[in-house]
Amino acid sequence: MRNIKLTLQYDGTNFYGFELQPNKRTIRREIEKALNKIFKTRIKIISSSRTDSGVHALALVCNFKTKSDLPASKISKALNGCLPKEIRAVKAEDKDKVFHARYDAKSKVYEYLIYNGKTLPPFIRNITWHVKPKLDLPSMRKAARILKGKHDFSSFCAARSDDKDFVRIIHSLGIRHSALGIWRGAKVRVISITVRGNGFLYKMVRNMVGTLVEVGLGRFDLADVKRILKGRNRKLAGRCAPAQGLCLVRINYR
Amino acid sequence: MRNIKLTLQYDGTNFYGFELQPNKRTIRREIEKALNKIFKTRIKIISSSRTDSGVHALALVCNFKTKSDLPASKISKALNGCLPKEIRAVKAEDKDKVFHARYDAKSKVYEYLIYNGKTLPPFIRNITWHVKPKLDLPSMRKAARILKGKHDFSSFCAARSDDKDFVRIIHSLGIRHSALGIWRGAKVRVISITVRGNGFLYKMVRNMVGTLVEVGLGRFDLADVKRILKGRNRKLAGRCAPAQGLCLVRINYR
Repeated sequence: MRNIKLTLQYDGTNFYGFELQPNKRTIRREIEKALNKIFKTRIKIISSSRTDSGVHALALVCNFKTKSDLPASKISKALNGCLPKEIRAVKAEDKDKVFHARYDAKSKVYEYLIYNGKTLPPFIRNITWHVKPKLDLPSMRKAARILKGKHDFSSFCAARSDDKDFVRIIHSLGIRHSALGIWRGAKVRVISITVRGNGFLYKMVRNMVGTLVEVGLGRFDLADVKRILKGRNRKLAGRCAPAQGLCLVRINYR
Repeated sequence: MRNIKLTLQYDGTNFYGFELQPNKRTIRREIEKALNKIFKTRIKIISSSRTDSGVHALALVCNFKTKSDLPASKISKALNGCLPKEIRAVKAEDKDKVFHARYDAKSKVYEYLIYNGKTLPPFIRNITWHVKPKLDLPSMRKAARILKGKHDFSSFCAARSDDKDFVRIIHSLGIRHSALGIWRGAKVRVISITVRGNGFLYKMVRNMVGTLVEVGLGRFDLADVKRILKGRNRKLAGRCAPAQGLCLVRINYR
């Protein structure tokens, strides 16, 4: 039995998230449908992550078992022939039989984009959160330093999570304001919040971003952020940032 | 009577181009519908350009007359309240009564994006032309230098054009390969072809790009490009590059 590691990229705009849902267009449904078609047998993938509806991915990793001898390089090509253009198989590779896309993940990197200005450029409407009042980035960076490190992140975990251990390590949490380079003629700048951690609770990144934005708007100060983190209570933190700004950028394996 | 200059940005993906068409969703239809709603009277805009179906704009300029005393700054705000998110009014300003969005345009800048690689990233599928074989950029740049300047561009003008004068001046035509900066985590590079000219014939930019790509693929050499330009016959030039890669970037006025 071969064990195939698959790296996928997708625009999550028109999907009901990753996981299967009855009668809904989801990422897992599209991928398993394509794999079933290629291998002519029912294949179930193990995924590193389950992104929510509207969330994007630059490199989601999953794995699956197969007896087929189709070369790995041809698997991604065959998949791209079956998948909608919104999902692309970037890479398929053979791994040893113990590789597990979820359990072997050492750290994950997410990036969240905010457009901080009056008029939201149409081209980024599906990949940014539009925040109109000017955000105070230096204060947001100070708040980010509070969240960095090993903490119980209960306050940033959505209610319907089935997690039991709420301790996670945030290795880095950086906030940058930089020019968006789609067209050279466009003068669009976005705020990018990049977070790397050993794992993330349900909606944790979006809840952290929501809280950082409250700081940027002057509604929370640094003492509030410390209080929220220590309180271990979801009701304390800021609103959940909308899905479309979030992108799973990378998964690092041991 | 006031004369208002309006600057618009739009994602052309889900529109049948700029001009009115019976029962079709077009840019002009959406803008005039919004203006009629705001001013409660029938308003017809004069547009600098008529982009094709699927073509985008960062700064299309149009103008219209009104007797209303609504301040210019409130016009764009009101428009953005009525328009779909795919179209944004970037700016509205009062101009003297002789300003004409089309006749007063001194030059226009278009940018065309090409993704030159195996797997098209889903996020740029609506704003790039996906060309898989590796393009020879130095040869394309040499060909671009042939097209620069004042020429009869009949060979690059689509058949159903009603233009009579086919002479245009291309002030600059640059080709760059640069990193696309949406997410910092994405390592996507695109080829950007930027062209500035005093005016463009119907589908001229897309026909020029199509010919440059033929050069990049080694199907045309520089002598072919000279022959095509001199031949003044649309049948000689390369295929028309697809609409979604094209974006109207800027219009310069005297």
